Parts: sequence; C-alpha cells; structure tokens
Amino acid sequence: MADTLDLQPIPDPAAWTCPAPLRDQPRIVMGHGGGGALSAELVRHVFAPAFGGDALAQLGDAAAVSLGGLRLALSTDSFVVRPLFFPGGSIGDLAVNGTVNDLAMSGARAAYLSCGFILEEGVELETVARVADALGAAARAAGVEVATGDTKVVEAGHGDGVFVNTAGIGLIPAGVDLRPQRVVPGDVVIVSGAVGVHGVAIMSVREGLEFGVEIESDCAALGGLVDAMLAVTPDLHVLRDPTRGGLAAALNEIATASGTGTVISEREVPVPPAVANACAMLGLDPLYVANEGKLVAFVPREHADAVLQAMRSHPLGGESRIIGEAVADHPGMVVARTGLGGTRVVDMPIGEQLPRIC
Amino acid sequence: MADTLDLQPIPDPAAWTCPAPLRDQPRIVMGHGGGGALSAELVRHVFAPAFGGDALAQLGDAAAVSLGGLRLALSTDSFVVRPLFFPGGSIGDLAVNGTVNDLAMSGARAAYLSCGFILEEGVELETVARVADALGAAARAAGVEVATGDTKVVEAGHGDGVFVNTAGIGLIPAGVDLRPQRVVPGDVVIVSGAVGVHGVAIMSVREGLEFGVEIESDCAALGGLVDAMLAVTPDLHVLRDPTRGGLAAALNEIATASGTGTVISEREVPVPPAVANACAMLGLDPLYVANEGKLVAFVPREHADAVLQAMRSHPLGGESRIIGEAVADHPGMVVARTGLGGTRVVDMPIGEQLPRIC
Repeated sequence: MADTLDLQPIPDPAAWTCPAPLRDQPRIVMGHGGGGALSAELVRHVFAPAFGGDALAQLGDAAAVSLGGLRLALSTDSFVVRPLFFPGGSIGDLAVNGTVNDLAMSGARAAYLSCGFILEEGVELETVARVADALGAAARAAGVEVATGDTKVVEAGHGDGVFVNTAGIGLIPAGVDLRPQRVVPGDVVIVSGAVGVHGVAIMSVREGLEFGVEIESDCAALGGLVDAMLAVTPDLHVLRDPTRGGLAAALNEIATASGTGTVISEREVPVPPAVANACAMLGLDPLYVANEGKLVAFVPREHADAVLQAMRSHPLGGESRIIGEAVADHPGMVVARTGLGGTRVVDMPIGEQLPRIC
Repeated sequence: MADTLDLQPIPDPAAWTCPAPLRDQPRIVMGHGGGGALSAELVRHVFAPAFGGDALAQLGDAAAVSLGGLRLALSTDSFVVRPLFFPGGSIGDLAVNGTVNDLAMSGARAAYLSCGFILEEGVELETVARVADALGAAARAAGVEVATGDTKVVEAGHGDGVFVNTAGIGLIPAGVDLRPQRVVPGDVVIVSGAVGVHGVAIMSVREGLEFGVEIESDCAALGGLVDAMLAVTPDLHVLRDPTRGGLAAALNEIATASGTGTVISEREVPVPPAVANACAMLGLDPLYVANEGKLVAFVPREHADAVLQAMRSHPLGGESRIIGEAVADHPGMVVARTGLGGTRVVDMPIGEQLPRIC
C-alpha cells in the first residue's frame, strides 16, 4: 500500500468523448449518473428547481435535518452495480456501506435503514437470497438495523437483475458540524488509505473487460473510523467518502462549496501497485476511480497529528496519510504537485470513467 | 360514488394461472411484486431471515423506530408504474404520496423524504424534468421536504425510463399506537371513499389495454385526513392504505396479524360505476384493485361515529363509509356478505391482477 504512482495528466476535457452539457443534451446519458459535472448539472438545473427549498445544498449527500428537537442525518443511494458479486463484496454490501458512509460523513452513526428492491422478472431467487444475506450481514457488521423494506418486480428486459435502494437515518452528535463551508486555508487533507481499490476490483470482473488482478474491493462501513476521529475532536471541518468520480470529484466538490483552493501532493496519495497497473493499462487516472471504504478529511491544523494517529490506530485507517492542505490561492480549484515537481489542475470529472460502479 | 356493485366471487386460487409458491419456484415472477401472498412469502422466506431482528414484523409497512428518545416512522417504496403519466397523476405524485401515506398509516406526519432516481440511458431530459416537477409539487402539497437524493443511470435496455424510490421519516405523536395487533372484535371498519379508482385509471391507459373511462387516479396524500381522525381520538387501532392487492390484501393482512376475523358488507363498499364496468369488462374484482388515496381504518366502536363524521368533513374523506366490523369468529379470515344475502371468503390475492400499478 505504500507504493505511489506518478499520475498521468488527465485528457483535455474538450477532447473527451463525453456528451455536451445538459443544455445541449436532450437525453439522459450514462454520465448523468457518474457523480461528476453532468450529475451536478442534473441536480442544479432539473432537481433543485423542482424540489425547491434547501434541496440544492443538500442533494447528493446526507442531509442534516431537524425533527422533534433532534439533529438527524438522512441519506439515500440506489445501487445498480454490475456484476452483482465482485471480489471483496456485492451489491448487498454496497447498499449498506454506501448509505452508512454517507451518514458517517455528516458525523452520524447509522441507526436504521430502509431497503427497496427492484427485481427483474426471471432473476433467480437464489441470487436475490444471496444479495439479501450479504445485505443483512453487512448491516449487522455496521451495527445498523434494516427496519423497513419494499419489493417491486419489472418485466424481463425492463430491469437488470437486482437494483437496491437504501435510505438511512442517524443522530448527528452535539457539537459536530461537518460541511465544506467550514474549510479554511491551512486545513490539513487526510485520506484514510489507498485509493481506486473498489473501482479496479469491479473493473477486473466486468464483462468484456476481465483482467486478473489480486485486489478486492475496499467496501466497508466507516462509522467506527469516524467515531474514532470525532473522539479526538468534534471540530473536524468536512468528511467525504470519495465514491463515484473518485478522490478528484470529492476534492472538487469541497473546493467549490468552500471557496478555498486545495493542493495535494501526488506522491503522498496512496495507490497500490495493482491499481496503478490496472489504471495504466486502461488509460485511467486513479484519482478518478471510485472507492467505497475510504474517506477524505479536512482537519484543523492543530488537530491533524492527533486525528491522523487515531485513524492509523483503527483497522480501516491503518494506511491513513496527509496528502495536502487547503490554501487561500486559486479558490475553488484543486491542484496536484506532480512527482516531477510541476503542478497540474485536478478537474472535476464530467461523467464517470466506468459506469455502474456502485 | 354512492353506487355499489354486487361483487363477483373471485376464482378458486387453485385454478389461477399464478405460479407455485416460493419453495417450488426458482425464479422471480411478476407476482412477487404484487403485494399479495407471493410478496409475503418473499419477505418471510428470504428477506426476514437475512435481515433478522424485528424486520419480519416491520417489512412492507412503515416501521416505528426509536431514535434519541423519539418515536419515528420510517418507510420506503420504489415506484415502477407504467405509464409514467396517467389520468390524475404521475410517478412523481405516487412517489410522494405513496411514502407519505405509509407514514400516515402509523399516525406520523411525513417531515422529510429522500428521493432516488434510476434513469435509463436515452430517456428524454424533459421527461425527467416533468417527473421531478410533479414530485416537487406533490411534496409541497403534502407539506414534506425532499431533503436528499441520488441519481443512477443504467444502459438503454437495462431499465425502463424512470424508476423512483422515496423513503420518508416523520414523528409518531404521543399516545398513538396503530398496529393490527390492537384490533379487537367489535371494532368498526371504515373506508375513506371509493375503491379501485387508481388501478382502473392506470389500466385505462396501459399500452395494449387502452379503454376509455372517465376516471382519474385518486392519488393523494392522506396525512391531513389522518390528523383529522386522530384529533377525534388518538385511540384508533389500525390504519392501512389499500394499494397493491387492493382492499382485500389490506384486510387480509390486518386479519392475519391481529388474529381476529373481519366481516364486510359488499353493498357498503363504495365502487364507482366506471370502476365496476371496467372491472366487469376485464374480469377483475374491485376489492383487489389498487388505490392510492384511500385508507381503511379499524376504530373502537365507541369512537366510530365521531371518527366517521370527522372523515366526511375532510376533502379526502367525503365518501367515507362503515363497511364492516372485526369479529371473534373465523380468526384471521375476511368474509364478505354478498348482495344476494350469502357470504364468501375474501382471500389474500396471490400476486397482482395488473403489475406495475405503482
């Protein structure tokens, strides 16, 4: 895990084969589900105006809401990953950990999940049962109860085996206020371990793309790791789990919302050799590959060492590392110092390098 | 709305073309999503063992959960209705009202919704925007905030335009304890209006099945009606919105869970002539056709008249009517007195007469 990689520059967005922005694009394309710029356009131009209220600020992450005097986190994710079972996990694990982690990024420990299945006519009951078993086991591991559910069935050819949606609720502890707007120049950027692992694990078994790598998805529930960090200080500034769009999308979202710049050092970003090799083969940038058991934290400088130590003492944070800092320069922009001593802009991805990764 | 129908006896289940029970059935069939016996088997034999805990009792309805000293209702539904837009509503309206009503059936006023879209590549953005607009408008009408969301995209041919999942949370008021186990013989059964309206409205525009009827879906949010009922007394015993599987499924679920029998009078069940005619044409029983803006209540006899008056004074309950009572005889079984003076058993449906009704 200690090996790092000199990252390749990403291609000029203008040269991408990605579709044009929303306003010139009359139909949904795969990139609208990629967690990048196209997803953000869909939220900004379609969902936010329709839903109104605070939805714009909230969509895409756990929402902090008030109910009966409590501060609750509410989050949802649908899961359409292919294949359903992959090295190190399954759609059932993702369905729990994805939502548990979204809640954890607001400081909340997940308490209850809802679970909605959309099944395709003809899928084997054994497959459904294996997904359900994995989901139940992941929920027990994460300490969250599946409290309610729903099942719909669509005709063969109108779905794809098993889709799962989960929504979750949890209490946000007193004194915890995690959001990008709290980031200030000088904050230290920490990642909890190697990046790109989940995405490469999925790719390695994707139909038409199979290649052998000895790597398993990092899919895991991060509630315990976040608890360990908050035990050092409730005054963390923002947490994010870099799923679709990878670390690059997470850092860009934070930079845009906080109005600060971010500088990371490519050499400090942990990229396992197997991930680096797979990315080199496929022409991908590990910064843009999805994770599902990692987080990135912006921590006040005075707490950074203690938080880093707490993370390294946790089973899911042993490879935690400081990779950069928030800066007053280039507000809203993420810049990487390259291995050769130069710098490059780390752009927001447009779509997703590989669709249906979660 | 005052017209009633002499209902036809439903066919002998043994003669149905429905598939065999779960244990003899290796694949998912449409009926597993129909809200009847096959759905219940899936929950009992697959999901409940996998999820453990209180999941069995809770699955399929709003769950009452404890968090931070509060009693919350949590519910989820996925929506796969075809077509997306139908007389009187759309998948966006259903996505709000379906979940708001599930919460209302536990006495909770919906406070926040999550919203997850699974879009098919190639669907027109305008279609997505129309669904989102309808969803937002329905949320405002129901007084609930869409607080968080998620969008996934699947390849063309692996979805069906737009699927929507919503999950919702709300506070259960003090003193309210709505569940089938509270039903006792003598309880009065009230429906809030005509049955079968939503299902017939969908059928009337279903591809390959179009027929002209002048009827619109009854899709509506029932939180206000439930509030009006609870203002009479918090001591209602159970509420249920008879969606998939219709009034028959709702009454059977209550009878099974409560261990009481139920007797209804067919003549008292309000069936509009357009619904009766459509059902006669299609060979359907209105008791089994889905609703989305109606509820059935089991109310202690001493409160029945006052609750009925409160319902009739509400815009969504003007046609409310007492249709039967809970009895000590034939525990777990629902029996209808027919228009001819005989009785018939109202069985739990196996699957759904018409799939993808919500």
